[in-house]
Amino acid sequence: AKDLHHSCQWGFGIRWGDNTTDTGMQRLALSEEDKSVRDWFIQTMKDLKCEITVDEMGNIFAVRPGRRKDVPATFIGSHLDTQPTGGRYDGILGVLAGVEALKRMDEMGLETEGGVGVVNWTNEEGARFPVSMISSGVWAECIPLSKAHNLKEVPTVASLPTAASAPETMKSALQKIGYLGSVPCSYKTTPMAAHFELHIEQGPHLVSANQRVGVVAAVQAYRWFRLKVIGRDTHTGTTAFEHRADALYAFSRMMVRAREIAAARGCLASVGIIEAKPGSVNTVPGQVNFSLDIRGPETELVAEVEKELRADFDAIAAEEGAGIGKPCRVEWTLDFDSPAVKFHDDCIDCVQQSAHAVVADAPVAVPESLVRHIMSGAGHDSVFTSKRVPTSMIFVPCNDGLSHHPEEFCSADDCATGASVILQAVVRYDRK
Amino acid sequence: AKDLHHSCQWGFGIRWGDNTTDTGMQRLALSEEDKSVRDWFIQTMKDLKCEITVDEMGNIFAVRPGRRKDVPATFIGSHLDTQPTGGRYDGILGVLAGVEALKRMDEMGLETEGGVGVVNWTNEEGARFPVSMISSGVWAECIPLSKAHNLKEVPTVASLPTAASAPETMKSALQKIGYLGSVPCSYKTTPMAAHFELHIEQGPHLVSANQRVGVVAAVQAYRWFRLKVIGRDTHTGTTAFEHRADALYAFSRMMVRAREIAAARGCLASVGIIEAKPGSVNTVPGQVNFSLDIRGPETELVAEVEKELRADFDAIAAEEGAGIGKPCRVEWTLDFDSPAVKFHDDCIDCVQQSAHAVVADAPVAVPESLVRHIMSGAGHDSVFTSKRVPTSMIFVPCNDGLSHHPEEFCSADDCATGASVILQAVVRYDRK
Ligand SMILES: NC(=O)NCCC(=O)O
Ligand SMILES: NC(=O)NCCC(=O)O
Repeated sequence: AKDLHHSCQWGFGIRWGDNTTDTGMQRLALSEEDKSVRDWFIQTMKDLKCEITVDEMGNIFAVRPGRRKDVPATFIGSHLDTQPTGGRYDGILGVLAGVEALKRMDEMGLETEGGVGVVNWTNEEGARFPVSMISSGVWAECIPLSKAHNLKEVPTVASLPTAASAPETMKSALQKIGYLGSVPCSYKTTPMAAHFELHIEQGPHLVSANQRVGVVAAVQAYRWFRLKVIGRDTHTGTTAFEHRADALYAFSRMMVRAREIAAARGCLASVGIIEAKPGSVNTVPGQVNFSLDIRGPETELVAEVEKELRADFDAIAAEEGAGIGKPCRVEWTLDFDSPAVKFHDDCIDCVQQSAHAVVADAPVAVPESLVRHIMSGAGHDSVFTSKRVPTSMIFVPCNDGLSHHPEEFCSADDCATGASVILQAVVRYDRK
Repeated sequence: AKDLHHSCQWGFGIRWGDNTTDTGMQRLALSEEDKSVRDWFIQTMKDLKCEITVDEMGNIFAVRPGRRKDVPATFIGSHLDTQPTGGRYDGILGVLAGVEALKRMDEMGLETEGGVGVVNWTNEEGARFPVSMISSGVWAECIPLSKAHNLKEVPTVASLPTAASAPETMKSALQKIGYLGSVPCSYKTTPMAAHFELHIEQGPHLVSANQRVGVVAAVQAYRWFRLKVIGRDTHTGTTAFEHRADALYAFSRMMVRAREIAAARGCLASVGIIEAKPGSVNTVPGQVNFSLDIRGPETELVAEVEKELRADFDAIAAEEGAGIGKPCRVEWTLDFDSPAVKFHDDCIDCVQQSAHAVVADAPVAVPESLVRHIMSGAGHDSVFTSKRVPTSMIFVPCNDGLSHHPEEFCSADDCATGASVILQAVVRYDRK
C-alpha cells in the first residue's frame, strides 16, 4: 500500500481531501507522467532482478525466472494509465499487487516452476486513445498493430493542450516518451502460461453485500462508437425552429432515447465525449460528434440495443430539418467491439481457493460468504489475454462502487486482501 | 461588389462552390485575418483622405470631413469580423457599403454639412469573445471597458488552436494585432450625429415576400447565458442509470425542454457551445458547460422564458442523481442582456424615403410594396448606437434567409440596392 501511493506521485489529479493521498489521478496513457511511472516500474523490477521486455505497443513485461526455462511465466497484469479524472486504484492496484507479490516471493525465498511476471499494459483506459485495452488486444492479435499505432488521441482531453490542434497517434506518443519497443507485440513472442489480474470492482455489489473478494467469472459485452450528426449551421436569432436542422437538438433527443432503450433491455448506453461545431453562441450547430458506449450482460443484447438505436436515431435525424427539406443525417463508426467473455475454469478455481483461504480467519460464521462470483461491468486487459491463455480476475470492493472519479477509494485492508489472493492464486496455478 | 469580395481575401472559410467567391468566411475577431482586413480598411480610407481614429476597443472610425467642423459626422457602420463558419455578407456588406458611399460622394464631388464616417466595430459577432456587439456597447457606455478588456475567448473555436489551453482576453488579442488604440472608447470622445447600418436580413421575410428592402424599425430582445451542470464523474460500464448524476444526460433533457418552452411563447432558445468534462468515452461526464441564447420580440417574453427554464432546469437537475442522494446542480451566468430596441423615427424616415426612391423605377404597380418595415431577429451594433444617437438600419434579402453559414448569399443587385439606399439616407439625414 505504501508503494501503491508512492507510484501515484506521477500525475496527481483532483484533490478531494486533506491527506497527501486524498487526490485523484490524471495520468493519461503515454503522457510525461506515464513515462515517469514506467521508468519507476522498470527500475523497481530490475532491482528485483527481473528480465524486462518492452514491446511495440509499449507493454512492459518483467519476469522473475522460475526453475524451468522451457515454460512461459505466469503473469500478474494490469495498467498504470488513468482516466483524466481518475482515481488511485483503477489499474494501479493490479500492477502494484504484482510488484508486491514478487517482493514477497523474494522475502520468502520462494522458487516457482515457471517464472512469474508482472505486465503493465499500455492505454487500458481508452481515455486518451479511444480504444480500451488496445495493447493487450494487439498482443492477443485481435487488433492489428497498424490500427493501434495509427489511432489518434481524442481532442477533448483537457490536460494535453496539443490534442485539439495536432493530435498524436499512439505511435508518435510512444516514440515521444521512448517506449516504442522493438519486440513484436504478440502472445507468440511474449507468451504467458496464464494471466491473473487484481482490480477494484468499480461497481456496488461487493460493498453493498459486505463481501470482501470477488471471483470474476465473466465480463459483460460492450461496443464503442463514434457518431456524427450532420445538420446545417444557421443563425440562432433569425431562424425559426421549423427552419432548423439543429444537430445538437437532434443529439439531445438521441441521448434521452438511448437511455430509455438501453434501460428497457437491462443494458447501458452512455455518451462521454461530445463536440458541437462550429461552437459559437449564436450559430445553431451544424455538426455534432459524440461517443457512444453500449454495454450489456450478453453480446446479443448489446447488438439489439444498437439496432434499435440505429433506427431511432435515423428517425430523430429525419425529423430535424424536415421543414426545410434538409433533414439531419447520422453516421456511425464502430471503434471497438468486445463480446461477453467467460474466464478459464482453472484460473477461476485458483482464485476461488485462494480467496477462501485468505478470508478463512474472518470472524463470521461462514467465511466463504465473504466471497462472491461476479461478472465485470468494465473491460480489462484480462478480456484479451483470455483469448489466448487461461485467465481470471480478482475484485476487491471500492467505496460506493465509485470509479473513474478522483474519490475512488479502496481501503488498505482490501488492497492487502486482494494482493494476498493474487499471490496465492499464481502460486497455486504454478503448482498445477 | 468587387470591393466586397476583395475584402474577403483575408479569412477564406468553407468552400461550397466552384467560383472564386463561392467560399464562406472564417475571420474571427482580432485574428491575423482580421488584422489584415483592418489594415486594408485603414489604407483604403486614408486613400479617400479620411481621418482615422482607433479606440481602446479597436473600433476604427474613418471620417470624410464636411463643411462644418463643429458638428459630429453621420456614420455608416457595421463589422468585418465573422462567425467561424460565416458568410461573405454578414457585417462585411455594411462596412463595404460605407466605403462605396464615400467613393461615390468623392466621384460626385458631394459636399456635406457635417462629415460622413465609416466605422468598423470590433467583435460584433460575439463568436470569438462571447458577448455580441461588445465594442459598440463600450462606446455607448453600456458595457464597462474593463469587462470587455477582460473577456476571454471561447475554448471551442476550432481555428484558434491556443484557445483551449491559453485563452486570450480581448485586451491581449487587441495588443497582439496592434489594434489597442489609445483614444477612449466612448460616444463622448468619438461622437456621432447618427448611425446607419446596412445588413443582410439573415431571415426569410424579404425573400419569401419577394421584397427588396427592409426598413428596420426594431430589434428583438435577447439574453446570453453560460450554464454549468454539475453531476458526478463515474464509470460508464459499471454504473447503473439510477446511480448516475450524468451531467450530459441532464443537459439533453434541458435542451429538449428549452425548445418546447420557447416555442410555446413565440420565442427562440438555442445552444451553440457545449463542453462535457472530463471528455472520455468511458466516463459519465460530471460537468457540462453550455451557452444558452434566448430571444423574443419583447423583453418581457424573454424574461418569462428564462424564468420557466430556470425552474425546469432545476427540476431536471434534481431528478438526475436523486437515486444516490447526489443530484445534479445547475448554475447560470448572464453574459449579455439586450432588451428590445426601437429605432429613431427620423432615421427610419430617411431610410424609408430613400428606399422608396431607389425602388421607384421597378417594373411593378406599387414599387413601395417592395419595401417592408421589419423587426430584426439578430442583434447589430445599431442596437447600442441607438442608445446614444439617432439610428436605424436597412435590410436586403439573402438566399433562403440563411446566415452564419458559408453559403450565405446576397445578389450583387441587392447589395447595390442596399448601398444606394444607405448613401441616400445619410445624405438626407445630413440635410435635415
Ligand atoms: N477497468 C476499466 O475501467 N477499464 C476501462 C475499459 C472500460 O471502459 O471498461
Ligand atoms: N448580425 C449578427 O449576426 N449579429 C450577431 C449578434 C447576434 O447574435 O444577433
